[in-house]
Amino acid sequence: MDKHSLLETQSRILPYVHNTPILTSHLLDDLAGAKLFFKCENFQKMGAFKMRGAVNAIMQLTKAQQERGVVTHSSGNFAQALSLAARNLGVTAYIVMPTNAPKVKKEAVLGYGGIITDCEPNIQAREQAATQIVEKKGATFIHPSNDLNVILGNATSAMELLEAQPDLDFVVSPVGGGGLIAGTALATHYFGQKCVVIGGEPLVADDAYRSLKTGKIESNDSAHTIADGLRTQLGDINFPIIQKYVDHIIRVEEDEILRAMKLLWERLKIVVEPSSAVAFGAVLKDKSYFKDKSVGIILSGGNVDLDTIKFS
Amino acid sequence: MDKHSLLETQSRILPYVHNTPILTSHLLDDLAGAKLFFKCENFQKMGAFKMRGAVNAIMQLTKAQQERGVVTHSSGNFAQALSLAARNLGVTAYIVMPTNAPKVKKEAVLGYGGIITDCEPNIQAREQAATQIVEKKGATFIHPSNDLNVILGNATSAMELLEAQPDLDFVVSPVGGGGLIAGTALATHYFGQKCVVIGGEPLVADDAYRSLKTGKIESNDSAHTIADGLRTQLGDINFPIIQKYVDHIIRVEEDEILRAMKLLWERLKIVVEPSSAVAFGAVLKDKSYFKDKSVGIILSGGNVDLDTIKFS
Repeated sequence: MDKHSLLETQSRILPYVHNTPILTSHLLDDLAGAKLFFKCENFQKMGAFKMRGAVNAIMQLTKAQQERGVVTHSSGNFAQALSLAARNLGVTAYIVMPTNAPKVKKEAVLGYGGIITDCEPNIQAREQAATQIVEKKGATFIHPSNDLNVILGNATSAMELLEAQPDLDFVVSPVGGGGLIAGTALATHYFGQKCVVIGGEPLVADDAYRSLKTGKIESNDSAHTIADGLRTQLGDINFPIIQKYVDHIIRVEEDEILRAMKLLWERLKIVVEPSSAVAFGAVLKDKSYFKDKSVGIILSGGNVDLDTIKFS
Repeated sequence: MDKHSLLETQSRILPYVHNTPILTSHLLDDLAGAKLFFKCENFQKMGAFKMRGAVNAIMQLTKAQQERGVVTHSSGNFAQALSLAARNLGVTAYIVMPTNAPKVKKEAVLGYGGIITDCEPNIQAREQAATQIVEKKGATFIHPSNDLNVILGNATSAMELLEAQPDLDFVVSPVGGGGLIAGTALATHYFGQKCVVIGGEPLVADDAYRSLKTGKIESNDSAHTIADGLRTQLGDINFPIIQKYVDHIIRVEEDEILRAMKLLWERLKIVVEPSSAVAFGAVLKDKSYFKDKSVGIILSGGNVDLDTIKFS
């Protein structure tokens, strides 16, 4: 977890991921009152930053481990990421998915060659199903967000952003399971110049906000947010990093998330998922804080079930 | 209308337009059975290729003409393009818009500083209102598609595409008023290597298809297509170019347009308007014709009223 390990990670995964584009918009700058740099992970392979962590985690396994495959439980993007990363590296991926996962995400996992095991939509059922596959197949479990190699892989997005825009005042990342913001925070600590990391989180699933207040990992009783990638909670590996390097978390309401997403679609002409809009929504929510600053925003992904999106 | 005038046009407008990105997708290639290169005019300034023609047309006016302003009638993108191009060149733009024009497009015209005159949604009312402004203000009328300088400006999109991909077998463009496909055809004639130009047109507004058959400009009795940019008919300046340099036009049904648009949004993670999806829809419709070929597709723009789009 030092500068060197981040640079090594970046070189390691380089052949398997895109250096994603950074978009800007005068109109959105005017609206926010700040200079915004959108890091477009929706253009990453399989459509989200998760590809970075998945590739790195698999590459760090021994050859013997790789031959027995990898397993994860995920409701969405990490399932696709691990499936595609595994296929590209010649490894078998077993994916435990809740029965209520979005249809497009299940289809994408199958398209990338992942082997799906269905489970009930609760964390106990997921973990049990994954444990069974570990025992039966000898596969290695890779957690979607609470895994240091996943976090280091995820960090490469903010590294690229800071390479292109070294003097950012802020980087804003969505907070779900904590794997993206932890990586973003590490990258910013080692490669930023006085750059501050802020999280954006749905108000109705504000477990990370509360965790930073209480100093212990909090969970959500319910998490009925449109930002389906942000319903999960922090883990014991990413939480200490977040405590150390993230300044604070801004909570965003559901209508603010939808409004932010609509602005990104309309003005940047890109499709991003609701979770990505949470980070931009946080900047719009607390305008005075970001006023006249240079702000990087990690747009985490673009895997949306278009049939379910209604702007009006 | 020779190679030299195209190159001059490209240099002239260079400071005022983007060289837009070209996107590719393995998945869409597999689906089409061809190698596809999507020229993303949705990322052009004001969100559509029309900016190219508008800039060029204004720049070709005398200083005295520029001081008296420009006027056009347009239901959409050209209104925005002329407004923004005029503002960037220090010129006044008068825009005649039908009362039923999409709300986002009217707002955008106002945002770019265009001065709107409302008119009834028929071609006679539009032309009358524009003529009044020409007489009253001394402004120069610029037609959205039937103007040689507009056509030459529009041609620069395909020029950039062929610079990046010189050995394309086909370039496919949507056909509405004819200004884009005429420019595309000129660019491809002078800068392509045996590259063939194909049009994509909505079946329910197939005036250009019929015009090529009969040899005279046909019109549509009705044009209830989702591709709102393609409801207009050809003009006497662009039609001879289209007759000479466009191989043929493929007609696409409404559900095929919507399906093509959904694929572009889902897979390329970009927002394109229905008119853009018509060109891609044409390639999907006639797969055997394009099989294993290199195909450039002009995605004309990304200005969509998101409130009106329903994929299911």
